Amino acid sequence: MSAEPSSVPPASSPSAPRYGVWLVGARGSVATTAVVGCAAVAAGLHPPTGMVTETPDFATSGLPPLASLVFGGHDTVDCPLPKRAEHLAEGGVLPHGLPAAVHAELVAADREIRPGGPTLRDADAVPARTDDDWIDVFAADIRDFADRNGLAGVVVVNVASTEPAPAAGALPPSSLYAAAALRAGCGYVNFTPSTGLHHPALAELAASAGVPYAGRDGKTGQTLLRSVLGPMFQQRALAVRAWSGTNLLGGGDGAALADPAAAAAKNAGKERVLADTLGTAPEGEVHIDDVPALGDWKTAWDHIAFDGFLGSRMILQTIWQGCDSALAAPLVLDLARLLLRAGQQGITGPLGELGFYFKDPVGDGPASLGEQYTELKRFAARLSDTARPSHDAGDSGAQR
Amino acid sequence: MSAEPSSVPPASSPSAPRYGVWLVGARGSVATTAVVGCAAVAAGLHPPTGMVTETPDFATSGLPPLASLVFGGHDTVDCPLPKRAEHLAEGGVLPHGLPAAVHAELVAADREIRPGGPTLRDADAVPARTDDDWIDVFAADIRDFADRNGLAGVVVVNVASTEPAPAAGALPPSSLYAAAALRAGCGYVNFTPSTGLHHPALAELAASAGVPYAGRDGKTGQTLLRSVLGPMFQQRALAVRAWSGTNLLGGGDGAALADPAAAAAKNAGKERVLADTLGTAPEGEVHIDDVPALGDWKTAWDHIAFDGFLGSRMILQTIWQGCDSALAAPLVLDLARLLLRAGQQGITGPLGELGFYFKDPVGDGPASLGEQYTELKRFAARLSDTARPSHDAGDSGAQR
Amino acid sequence: MSAEPSSVPPASSPSAPRYGVWLVGARGSVATTAVVGCAAVAAGLHPPTGMVTETPDFATSGLPPLASLVFGGHDTVDCPLPKRAEHLAEGGVLPHGLPAAVHAELVAADREIRPGGPTLRDADAVPARTDDDWIDVFAADIRDFADRNGLAGVVVVNVASTEPAPAAGALPPSSLYAAAALRAGCGYVNFTPSTGLHHPALAELAASAGVPYAGRDGKTGQTLLRSVLGPMFQQRALAVRAWSGTNLLGGGDGAALADPAAAAAKNAGKERVLADTLGTAPEGEVHIDDVPALGDWKTAWDHIAFDGFLGSRMILQTIWQGCDSALAAPLVLDLARLLLRAGQQGITGPLGELGFYFKDPVGDGPASLGEQYTELKRFAARLSDTARPSHDAGDSGAQR
Amino acid sequence: MSAEPSSVPPASSPSAPRYGVWLVGARGSVATTAVVGCAAVAAGLHPPTGMVTETPDFATSGLPPLASLVFGGHDTVDCPLPKRAEHLAEGGVLPHGLPAAVHAELVAADREIRPGGPTLRDADAVPARTDDDWIDVFAADIRDFADRNGLAGVVVVNVASTEPAPAAGALPPSSLYAAAALRAGCGYVNFTPSTGLHHPALAELAASAGVPYAGRDGKTGQTLLRSVLGPMFQQRALAVRAWSGTNLLGGGDGAALADPAAAAAKNAGKERVLADTLGTAPEGEVHIDDVPALGDWKTAWDHIAFDGFLGSRMILQTIWQGCDSALAAPLVLDLARLLLRAGQQGITGPLGELGFYFKDPVGDGPASLGEQYTELKRFAARLSDTARPSHDAGDSGAQR
Repeated sequence: MSAEPSSVPPASSPSAPRYGVWLVGARGSVATTAVVGCAAVAAGLHPPTGMVTETPDFATSGLPPLASLVFGGHDTVDCPLPKRAEHLAEGGVLPHGLPAAVHAELVAADREIRPGGPTLRDADAVPARTDDDWIDVFAADIRDFADRNGLAGVVVVNVASTEPAPAAGALPPSSLYAAAALRAGCGYVNFTPSTGLHHPALAELAASAGVPYAGRDGKTGQTLLRSVLGPMFQQRALAVRAWSGTNLLGGGDGAALADPAAAAAKNAGKERVLADTLGTAPEGEVHIDDVPALGDWKTAWDHIAFDGFLGSRMILQTIWQGCDSALAAPLVLDLARLLLRAGQQGITGPLGELGFYFKDPVGDGPASLGEQYTELKRFAARLSDTARPSHDAGDSGAQR
Repeated sequence: MSAEPSSVPPASSPSAPRYGVWLVGARGSVATTAVVGCAAVAAGLHPPTGMVTETPDFATSGLPPLASLVFGGHDTVDCPLPKRAEHLAEGGVLPHGLPAAVHAELVAADREIRPGGPTLRDADAVPARTDDDWIDVFAADIRDFADRNGLAGVVVVNVASTEPAPAAGALPPSSLYAAAALRAGCGYVNFTPSTGLHHPALAELAASAGVPYAGRDGKTGQTLLRSVLGPMFQQRALAVRAWSGTNLLGGGDGAALADPAAAAAKNAGKERVLADTLGTAPEGEVHIDDVPALGDWKTAWDHIAFDGFLGSRMILQTIWQGCDSALAAPLVLDLARLLLRAGQQGITGPLGELGFYFKDPVGDGPASLGEQYTELKRFAARLSDTARPSHDAGDSGAQR
Repeated sequence: MSAEPSSVPPASSPSAPRYGVWLVGARGSVATTAVVGCAAVAAGLHPPTGMVTETPDFATSGLPPLASLVFGGHDTVDCPLPKRAEHLAEGGVLPHGLPAAVHAELVAADREIRPGGPTLRDADAVPARTDDDWIDVFAADIRDFADRNGLAGVVVVNVASTEPAPAAGALPPSSLYAAAALRAGCGYVNFTPSTGLHHPALAELAASAGVPYAGRDGKTGQTLLRSVLGPMFQQRALAVRAWSGTNLLGGGDGAALADPAAAAAKNAGKERVLADTLGTAPEGEVHIDDVPALGDWKTAWDHIAFDGFLGSRMILQTIWQGCDSALAAPLVLDLARLLLRAGQQGITGPLGELGFYFKDPVGDGPASLGEQYTELKRFAARLSDTARPSHDAGDSGAQR
Repeated sequence: MSAEPSSVPPASSPSAPRYGVWLVGARGSVATTAVVGCAAVAAGLHPPTGMVTETPDFATSGLPPLASLVFGGHDTVDCPLPKRAEHLAEGGVLPHGLPAAVHAELVAADREIRPGGPTLRDADAVPARTDDDWIDVFAADIRDFADRNGLAGVVVVNVASTEPAPAAGALPPSSLYAAAALRAGCGYVNFTPSTGLHHPALAELAASAGVPYAGRDGKTGQTLLRSVLGPMFQQRALAVRAWSGTNLLGGGDGAALADPAAAAAKNAGKERVLADTLGTAPEGEVHIDDVPALGDWKTAWDHIAFDGFLGSRMILQTIWQGCDSALAAPLVLDLARLLLRAGQQGITGPLGELGFYFKDPVGDGPASLGEQYTELKRFAARLSDTARPSHDAGDSGAQR
């Protein structure tokens, strides 16, 4: 297996192990882009731009090849993946022609998507399902996916729209899915600001589940920038007086985040990055506006007022124009591979070493991107530890 | 000691050693701001914003206190420092009232400024001075400064306007001053893109002089940003396609850099930072425009076109509005203190550990600001090495 | 005439008429800048940058000379004008040294400031003053100002902080002042988004008062830009999809507008300009953030997504960095002079011709700045009508 | 007529007159976009965004319908229009699928393209063609186009790449084409900064040709903005100190303008707009950078330093991200229709009324966009003058 080239089909010959990536929000932009991109890069149609795990530092980490990944997931919407991919191509997120080129992979992933919940419709069901019922249903879906596909491991990744901060006590949907991942014995990644495993009711379960987990809230644009600019100001002993920001975004994300409760969840992560890197929270607000005309594209303007020597007033402004799906998808693939490999290696619990990817990382770790990158490379080396059994599928999740 | 500025308290009691900072370009904006700022911070009039050496990591490095620094230097212009400082206050670079508050220190430093050269006027002198004559004159000026002030060490810092790239063979003025520093046994810092010690004719001298030196080209604004943004793109495996920039600046610097030859010297440093951090040189040009209306303020616009996953096109723009003098002056004080202490500790030769401060650092070292900061902190720890005699002035330059 | 400021020369010889400018919010930034600037320009210390009425098109309009203007007003705060002016100079709004140069004029204006109201303190007074009582008090203050100074006319200009949208029925303070202006027979200008004369209870009074009035909400920065960019898109048949904006401002204004009710009043004016010039209201929000670190300076970022030919997506962004007081003050002087002259010429009622100055102009008129400028120049010509008596003070307000 | 594209409805029934648009640079981005867009709008596939002549003010001007336009032209390159259109769709300039939808029209236009010159290859021809030979060849091409298609009028529009400023005396290619237009009796529009009719040797010919002409240098992006922002500053009596700009553009245009001589031609137009609207030329430079990574998209950054009241320093920055072809093409269609109609109406000579479209307009006229728009609407009204014969093709060019 060691000489197996990752992007070439033979890799998934009947004898090569295959790994599952179970996406919560499997029909969203990020999930669709991840499925399309995995197939496109595996087939050599595109270079792996944006995938950190395809850089040389990860070459010997024993990560599952892209061609070995099998996708499935939960979603509450019905639009089939091939159609969703066409929409993304029309909006300029995916190259024209690419959805057609990877049609087979989209159809295959679409067949593995199961209905999510609870939705408003479910609220009327009699008798009502309890939280525990839902967790059982979701966990069964994941185990069934692993069984039917003969997977050597499965990781669950939450890429659904941001949910509002939950009412006290209740388990929000993101936490039901997270609990299902644990119940199915799978690693778990929360790429969103939603609650997921960050719920008091799940703390004990997470600690004892014996699976690796990571999150939360992927660091893709404005906060990525902040995680390098904050340390710059701090290292140069420049005094940041006010850091203000406005995000304009369309797509479903814009509408979801126009809900003040959802925006609050997202902003908390952004502000944490500033406070952690600057050592103090500067003045300033962050706005998130829903601007449907921008489609899947996003503009983030930041205005940073800082003092230099002798109180001189200076200003840095940044304007970031990007596509969140295209920024998030390669990181989702990175994380899926890293968690799958960690599971194989028997690494469990919160993976603080993956702070590079998140606004609000689990565990302890540095807040500056540079130091987080150093930690990530150290983790990559740890994964390739030859002392551990590298093909013992017995201790990874969702397998028999 | 009778000229001791009244605002500098006990720290510089008659028995405490005093250290010299000899500024080439001693009447320029950067030098004036450094002299004013040193006095203001030493007297507690302003916090040490922008001075990295005043942060906790340097507390035990044994650096000379600000109040122990004595300023002098060379310049070819006549405007007295107190008047120059008033101009800077009118332009908003210095707080109003501050030049008056540190008038005594400005007068003291002004008395220690000697005529620079060679100027056009000198070209007509008969008999013409040779390069070696000039070096002798400059070195004598420095030694005289050290003697009369009873200094325990002197460092020479070039903060003069950028000079055009020199004709082959000839020693440009910046190199004459650099050679004089070595001849006087002083540490040397080149904060500008000018040649300084980077001249083949000085290589041997630099190697054998037994003094520490650092440079070149202080990283204050646009390039500071580039040194954190470049690594961000590289670490995230994003493909930078084009990096374009325009700098608008007034003051003397704008006029000096409107000379294409001087601009070329400056741009080489900027581009080196990109190539070193990205691993490849992207498309794009850098313009430096002289805009006298901006006075001592500077605006730098950067436009970075990069590719994300599956070739999606994204753009980051940055706008930096700062005052170069206010950004440079605290770094000049940092460097002066670090070099003076290094000299005391017997550390000689190129100080690659100071890459944090420069666009085009001497020696080897990382190109990303974060790693350079780590190196700097390591250097700070090394300076406090208790195994070395910390007050043996015998091996530092320009003292008896 | 013995109080005549020494810096104001022959123009206001004893026989020349003098005119009053009564500022509501007389100790605010805008008022202070107007008083300082009027004196400075009258004395030839500064050119009349930003004053449209000093351009050649107004040379024959018979406007009162700057040196003939006498200032007074209402305010609820106590800080004396000379001190307020010093604060503005420290914040960079006024040139250093200028407050001292026009100290006499500041003292003179400060002596003419009367307490405003009703404040919270007034709410406890027994017996409580009625709205009508307040109007009487304010009108008496204005008449007294005119009498004591022997003024040939007085105009009242509201430059107070934006007040929240009033509860239905109640007369907000801005309307009490406006009613007082009418009761005193003075022209009235509302430079703020507050209600002023825009109150149903004042409609009849305004119609019958026989004085000119104008407003509301001065067009100084972001909206000024919008009033030229909106027409550009409309004239070129480009389809604006979304127009989003964020304003960062400190000073008292930032705090006042952080109140959502006050911000709503202000934003209504901004949006009206877009809708009027584009013919349709695009997507997008406007945020107003209080950022105390910016002091009296303001940054406005606008992001305009528009469609070109065949649906091509394009973007214009603007960043405006200005000082509202310095933008508003010369317009306040313009308006005071125009209203004083209109009163002299017997021009009464809403001055729709002054839409050039306002976000939400009274009367009818074009919305594009260019057309508004044409109207303004036409009005300037009308003012110089030689058929009318130009020095008959008998029909202007607040005189005996 | 049997080849008439099926998407063009009744308007071009066999009896309706047809009009020719002869494009110099017929295979470039602008020309291709114009041909595609004319067909798409005529067929109702897209709204006429960006076409001023499709707004209500032009409804009664008697302009030739889009469906009546027939395209041809000169070019020195071979790439067929359908292929060029596909490239533009790949680059995001044209919507995907549109080139296929208007394939018939692209093929038809491509058949009417004749070889341009003189090229380097032509320089070796024996005997060498004289300027007059070239003009004859080009004029014959145009007449042949008119004859074969039975056109009621032809207008020649230069949309070729900007040529370097010509050597004294020589007629540059753009002038040969312009002279050919006159010789063929056609109206002429110079949408580029190239010389065209602005050559002393053509002055007499232009005056006596009896055809309408307009130009030069289409005002599409940065200069369009300048033509509304310049008047704003002037009308508000704000003092512009420095106006600096940088343009980043890819495509062929970027490469052509990287030639300093071509850039100089283009910049002259930009600066003229500023000087004309501000009444004075501010400090500041304009850079044009070739950035191939941007493809057909362009970014223009402008930085405007201006003084407000009492010398307060303020800054406006604008960032324009657009696609020049998509901005230019609808204006080219506008101009073609306006010139064709003007010819019909017997209006000849320089059309100063079309200054709305150009950086450096022929004839006299206002410099602010708003006033130019007023002039354009007046011209639209003049075209519909019912006193003139509206279908007398006898006095329009290139017909027998």
